[in-house]
This record gives sequence, C-alpha cells and structure tokens, in this order.
Amino acid sequence: MKESIHAMSSIAIRPARRDDVASIISMLADDHLGRARERLEDPLPALYYKAFERVSEDPNIELVVAEEEGRVVGCLQLCILPGLSSQGASRGLIEDVRVASDRRSRGIGEQLVHWAVGEAKVRGCKLVELLTHQTRVDAQRFYERLGFARSHVGMTIRF
Amino acid sequence: MKESIHAMSSIAIRPARRDDVASIISMLADDHLGRARERLEDPLPALYYKAFERVSEDPNIELVVAEEEGRVVGCLQLCILPGLSSQGASRGLIEDVRVASDRRSRGIGEQLVHWAVGEAKVRGCKLVELLTHQTRVDAQRFYERLGFARSHVGMTIRF
Repeated sequence: MKESIHAMSSIAIRPARRDDVASIISMLADDHLGRARERLEDPLPALYYKAFERVSEDPNIELVVAEEEGRVVGCLQLCILPGLSSQGASRGLIEDVRVASDRRSRGIGEQLVHWAVGEAKVRGCKLVELLTHQTRVDAQRFYERLGFARSHVGMTIRF
Repeated sequence: MKESIHAMSSIAIRPARRDDVASIISMLADDHLGRARERLEDPLPALYYKAFERVSEDPNIELVVAEEEGRVVGCLQLCILPGLSSQGASRGLIEDVRVASDRRSRGIGEQLVHWAVGEAKVRGCKLVELLTHQTRVDAQRFYERLGFARSHVGMTIRF
C-alpha cells in the first residue's frame, strides 16, 4: 500500500480553459478507439473550439482537467441530468475520462472520478453513471475498485 | 409481418406537460426496478414537480410522451450532451423509456426511440447512447432490433 501512496500525484483539478483544448484532444486521440475518431492536427480544427464553447455555456456540464506542475495530465466531463425518475433526483453522467499515457497508475484518474462523484452529490444526484467500451477491461476494473457496479448494458448507435 | 403492422398504434409524440407528470411516474413505478424507487402517492410528492421544472428549463433535455386517444401511454427523455470527443460532436443520451403495461408490443416504444434518434441527428449528434439494466433482457433485444449495439458496459454508483 505504501508504494501506491508514494506514487500518488499531486494534482489540481480545475475547469478546462480554451487553451487546454489541444491537450485534451491529444489525450482523447491517444488510444485504440480515439485514434480513428479524432483529428489531431496543428492548428486544431475549429470544430473542437466550437464544441468547447457549447460545453462552457452549458451550466449542467463541467469539463475539468487535472494539472500537474503546469501540465494538463488528465480530463473528465461530468454532466448533471435532471429527470423525473428516482423521485426526481438528478443523475450524474461521467464521460471522456483520460489520463496522459506517461502519467498513468499514479492515482490521477482516481482523483478525477472522486471529484466527479463528490460534485454530483453536491449537485443533488443520487446516482452517477457511465459507459465504458467492452474492450476497456482495465477501465472496468478501475471503476469497480472505486465502487461502481457493472449493473447495466451500455448500448450505442453511431451515424 | 402483417400482424405487426396491423398492431402498430397510432400515437402522437409531444413534449411532456406538467399535467402528464403523474402518468409518467405511474409508468416509471410499474416494474421490478422502479417500484422500490418511486413514490406513487396521491397527491404526487412535490419533488416530482420540481424535477419537471428543472427538466423543462434545460434546453438540452427533451422529455416527451406518447399520447394515444388522449391517454399518455409512453415516455422518453432525450439529453443532448455537447462534448469534445468524436470531433466535437454532441452525444444523445436516452433515459427513462417506458410504455404503459397494457399498451406494449404495439410499436409505441419503437416510435419513441425512432423519434429520439431522429431528433438527436437533427441536433448534431453522431452517437446516441443509453444504459439498460442487466436484468432488462427484453429491452436489450428491443434496442438491438432498432440498430443499437451492445458495445459498452454501463456502470453505476448510487448514494
């Protein structure tokens, strides 16, 4: 246990800014699923900045980054979703969790998810949910370790 | 095939109104998971109406009902979620799909989901996602028939 405590990174979790967008896309593109989906070009395509504006304007969405010694090393998006079910409790939805490949296994993802669950509680949620791709077996073990249950099937349609 | 065509209900899909809330909660409460979670009382607890107000005020959430001959027989909530991934495309999230127990197998759920997928496309989504509980095997088959893939694991934490 000592080893994992020593290995914990000292990070700050803060709202993402416009000048973090390239770092975020670079993390989103850095895996077997993201590589085919993103356009990691220089300059970054304007559609990413337009999407960042939509995210920033939505009071029910919080896009945060983990910063370590001035470098963005992780990201997470939390959506707060009002709804009628579960006695009108809002739900939290976690999306797009990523940690820079050279900064993994240091507790950064854990700190991001703990932040998101805490924030969802503060904002009145009684449930936090997420979908992880069937192939992300490590991610599923990670979330189980943090108290999430594999309770649902996540279904998607792309077009 | 003719039978299923003959059995299709003629319904109207429209935004939910405040006076639909009791019908919606009654459908949400009418299954093995919802029964323990909802408070189907008369009058309905005020927290449901407060949640309805939060839903109505959120431009990225559309709560709709299926109406058949003046009666609410189905419901669905669609959330449009901006985000950076997939080249800044928004995602659609479908939640709380229900059809009144005496009106099932008539295509009402299918029409609701078709509406949601079409609306998500119009609003710029390239993906629609949803979570169904592991025990809802019929629902999983239903979504597969409509083109959804069992691509993800849906994970949840309740508190």
